[in-house]
Amino acid sequence: MSSTSARPVNITTRGSAVDRTDCDQEPGPDAVRCHSDPSAEIDCCTLGAGPIDAAEAEHLAMRLKALSDPTRLQLLSHVTARGCGDVCACDLTEPLGISQPTVSHHMKKLVDAGLLTREQKGRWAHYSVIPSAFAELRAFLDLS
Amino acid sequence: MSSTSARPVNITTRGSAVDRTDCDQEPGPDAVRCHSDPSAEIDCCTLGAGPIDAAEAEHLAMRLKALSDPTRLQLLSHVTARGCGDVCACDLTEPLGISQPTVSHHMKKLVDAGLLTREQKGRWAHYSVIPSAFAELRAFLDLS
Repeated sequence: MSSTSARPVNITTRGSAVDRTDCDQEPGPDAVRCHSDPSAEIDCCTLGAGPIDAAEAEHLAMRLKALSDPTRLQLLSHVTARGCGDVCACDLTEPLGISQPTVSHHMKKLVDAGLLTREQKGRWAHYSVIPSAFAELRAFLDLS
Repeated sequence: MSSTSARPVNITTRGSAVDRTDCDQEPGPDAVRCHSDPSAEIDCCTLGAGPIDAAEAEHLAMRLKALSDPTRLQLLSHVTARGCGDVCACDLTEPLGISQPTVSHHMKKLVDAGLLTREQKGRWAHYSVIPSAFAELRAFLDLS
């Protein structure tokens, strides 16, 4: 199904021919840099560390799916806008005009996806963000 | 449904009492900072510019939903790992072991969501990332 040769192939990045194998051999925690000349600073336009495997894709897709609901995004933005401390579920119904069961349903999805922590304090659940989970998503979405 | 008073309320951020109204009055393009004392450097833990409205939530959720599929994420990571230029659909079947119709199906979702551009070159479609779309998602997911 391919009209071009298999790897390695030469691609052109910002006007310079770059040997693709340099990218493959230099996977890193951040952006992959491709150098035909190692001293050159030519950025590849990559997502995170380049191609991801099936396990990583499953993990990231699970977290992104939990975020792919408008009500949930609004709730999340209200939680984090209230500060670094936790936020009571009782304070999340009024801003969005939704019921407590609806709040609980959406918050459970975010907790189950590892994006928030939940702590019961007396009658009410309290939620806090897990910053590392958001840093992970940002790293994947970083094209630089 | 609320056990606490309506806004403004005092929340505790990193051990300091912060007047919530300071956040409300200082929406910014980046993180919202909350100061009981304007000279203090107390960061709120916010997503982007703080609470988002329904329209923005719909827009972001649509893009995040397009990304919430493992195969699609792997395809996307292969596109971007190939460099800043475009990538032929013909080169995306082999790395993931999927058929051309499956590649086309997933890539269409990413194009429709405004994450990739598609250009027909002869027999094959070629795809490029839209960096601003990814920057927008990163900005929303930025807790700093």
